[in-house]
Amino acid sequence: MAISREATEKLAALLGERLSTTQAERDLHGGSETWHRAPPPDAVVWPVDTIEVAAILRIASAHRIPVIGWGTGTSLEGHALAVRGGISLDTSRMDRVIEIRPEDLQVTVQPGVTREALNRELRATGLFFPVDPGANASLGGMAATRASGTTAVRYGTMRDNVLGLEVVLADGRVIRTGSRAAKSSAGYDLTGLMVGSEGTLGIITELTLRLHGQPEEVAAAVCAFPTLEEAVECVTATIQSGIPMARIEFVDAGIARAFNRSAGTHLPEQPHLMVEFHGAKTSVASDADSFGAIAAEFGGAGFDWASTPEARNQLWRMRHGAYPAALALRPGATAVVTDVCVPMSHLAEAVSAAAADIAAEGLMGPIVGHVGDGNFHALLLIEPGNEVELTAAKRIATRMAERALDVGGTITGEHGVGIGKRALMTAEHGDGWQVMGAIKTALDPLGILNPGKLVPDAN
Amino acid sequence: MAISREATEKLAALLGERLSTTQAERDLHGGSETWHRAPPPDAVVWPVDTIEVAAILRIASAHRIPVIGWGTGTSLEGHALAVRGGISLDTSRMDRVIEIRPEDLQVTVQPGVTREALNRELRATGLFFPVDPGANASLGGMAATRASGTTAVRYGTMRDNVLGLEVVLADGRVIRTGSRAAKSSAGYDLTGLMVGSEGTLGIITELTLRLHGQPEEVAAAVCAFPTLEEAVECVTATIQSGIPMARIEFVDAGIARAFNRSAGTHLPEQPHLMVEFHGAKTSVASDADSFGAIAAEFGGAGFDWASTPEARNQLWRMRHGAYPAALALRPGATAVVTDVCVPMSHLAEAVSAAAADIAAEGLMGPIVGHVGDGNFHALLLIEPGNEVELTAAKRIATRMAERALDVGGTITGEHGVGIGKRALMTAEHGDGWQVMGAIKTALDPLGILNPGKLVPDAN
Repeated sequence: MAISREATEKLAALLGERLSTTQAERDLHGGSETWHRAPPPDAVVWPVDTIEVAAILRIASAHRIPVIGWGTGTSLEGHALAVRGGISLDTSRMDRVIEIRPEDLQVTVQPGVTREALNRELRATGLFFPVDPGANASLGGMAATRASGTTAVRYGTMRDNVLGLEVVLADGRVIRTGSRAAKSSAGYDLTGLMVGSEGTLGIITELTLRLHGQPEEVAAAVCAFPTLEEAVECVTATIQSGIPMARIEFVDAGIARAFNRSAGTHLPEQPHLMVEFHGAKTSVASDADSFGAIAAEFGGAGFDWASTPEARNQLWRMRHGAYPAALALRPGATAVVTDVCVPMSHLAEAVSAAAADIAAEGLMGPIVGHVGDGNFHALLLIEPGNEVELTAAKRIATRMAERALDVGGTITGEHGVGIGKRALMTAEHGDGWQVMGAIKTALDPLGILNPGKLVPDAN
Repeated sequence: MAISREATEKLAALLGERLSTTQAERDLHGGSETWHRAPPPDAVVWPVDTIEVAAILRIASAHRIPVIGWGTGTSLEGHALAVRGGISLDTSRMDRVIEIRPEDLQVTVQPGVTREALNRELRATGLFFPVDPGANASLGGMAATRASGTTAVRYGTMRDNVLGLEVVLADGRVIRTGSRAAKSSAGYDLTGLMVGSEGTLGIITELTLRLHGQPEEVAAAVCAFPTLEEAVECVTATIQSGIPMARIEFVDAGIARAFNRSAGTHLPEQPHLMVEFHGAKTSVASDADSFGAIAAEFGGAGFDWASTPEARNQLWRMRHGAYPAALALRPGATAVVTDVCVPMSHLAEAVSAAAADIAAEGLMGPIVGHVGDGNFHALLLIEPGNEVELTAAKRIATRMAERALDVGGTITGEHGVGIGKRALMTAEHGDGWQVMGAIKTALDPLGILNPGKLVPDAN
């Protein structure tokens, strides 16, 4: 669907050069980091404030033009693709840290601020924002997709760290959700509803976030295990023991090989855990000792402590580089990246079953995971355009999700629904998916906000 | 509105003696612990399972009869009053602990299980459910009202401790929200939407809750302060210092007097903090020392450590008895109980302003609070039927809420909206309140679920 000349003229009058319909910009905003593909949006806009976002949505409503939020384009399930055409609303020029309130452990930001930019701003305050999905995503995008990542086991996900939002609704109305208080029981939790709604209920134009004190001491380590099962069972035992892990990440032998190739490390090509402890000096030492004892029970060996900040940064840069490193295992490949989350007591069986299934399908598909939450990902490497491989990868992803549901888990722990997981929503939610559709229709009756995503099609 | 004979016959056929229209039962389910009053419901039903709840709601939908959930009747803002008549749906016979899963730190319960009953069941497991609003409320009611209380500063509110729900919708459809996984990004957070919806979106028939390990060591203490301001500033400093308080409660001089009268204690009639520390032996000792040093800076004196479980239980029984103890300060009184929640940095000024306002109005109105969250309550004692006093108390409550909003806080931290705070919802949420109404209409188009509460009247 192209945008009418009248609508384009209105947008141009509002935004001037901050509206683009060039092929280059449209293509930039029509891409995806994974295998998902769609035609590019018809136009790209770069509003600078809430008033402009509201004006854009009023124009879009009047002309029934789809509007798709765009942060940094790092989502993995095709969330930001313009599957029904329309306008890509890029928040990168709304990148102001509005107010840091250290005494309340809070910050208010515009949605285009990235998590790394925020943490640079916070450095001098002794505070930090912990949610870390790996990519240097925008905070608006992270809220919209309920991002989590390596530190969620300790600090929670975006659900736990967004206190309040300013949101522009489909018709251009602006609402404020939540407050600066630590808790509230003043009606429906609209903040929680917006977090994870993937741009289908509104465009986030401001966020108030919880901050945390920088830990006095940080210690990180990497440790090899004889088998996948032993590594994962070590995680379950660690979490059940109550050790307050700040991070506890699993990477399989394939990822260890990928790291060695791309980062020049010399890890044994075995499953590994990468862990981090935050706290007072004494408690970090005692937590690390407790973890070491559990790891030894499961055959953990070759502990490598990253005691300096540089060594730790290298460790987590390597972990965050798992995706490109894995892609490089098969030159030219793209990936079906899929994630599930299961109760801790079912984690080992779920990871083993996924690995066995990938092997049986004959694909290369390393597994990594934020396993302290029961959350793991398979990076299924396929040849672009190879339909047989794509179909096999989708079969694997579907079976991972079905097995997660069988044990009371969820079809996605953090990657979200986008277009990739819609077909599985009924299996997880039953009539609950229709309820999501009813909420969507109530808030966006014309269906202009990120259509074709998350909710049922009828809506 | 009376219930038609046809509807009554259908309910009787379904429930037999578990339907009552006697005046005694109707009155029992038409009461409120505070000043809010309404005519009793037309009937009371005691379903035993989800199937019966669904059948009740189908009958209620067919005949457009209001259905109001009833847990233990301990809400403070008139949530469970049948302001438009209808059926009081009492969940007390749905009191089964369905499954404890210690390896996942989870339990699944029916909604009529009370928090004390659950913790008795859990005792042998080494786990506990921390949310503690004081009253021995039902877990279904606690979820429906987003309860929190003394331990929220450490363990969070019901928002943080409900992983999943089974909910019967207005039309009798049954949905399951959330999962047993620690996190999910599979669509809108329907669990979060239901928690705190006060029975206006559905009837909760099953809950999956997060459990926590019983701390190795618990230490509690009570400490007097020269002035209200110093006590509250001590709290702000303590929270900002990052000491992981398990409880940090404020009671004013009036409540200290009330305790002395009703519990036979000999507290100085000054403001007090009541604190509790949870953790390993060494960390509890060091946390308590750190708190002691901060308290001393603010003139805290007369530390009384409750080292035995019996002494601790007595301390918290006394705290939980603050409401009846305060009522006894003025024999025959009822109370306008109101709560607000503000950012920590504004807590001292907010509590002082409330105290000054109560004094200026000439009412007796002790103040208590879960101050570690910035949450405090005024218990405004009035003579039943005295309209002048009632009006004065409502003025005080409104001004407390308005001052909370002025500093970015919320009109209620934990007591909820019910009928008592509806008039303030626009002040807090603006168009967001209309959004809540739109969601309500989408899920309950006939408006049979707890009508007259939380959302705008048009809905």
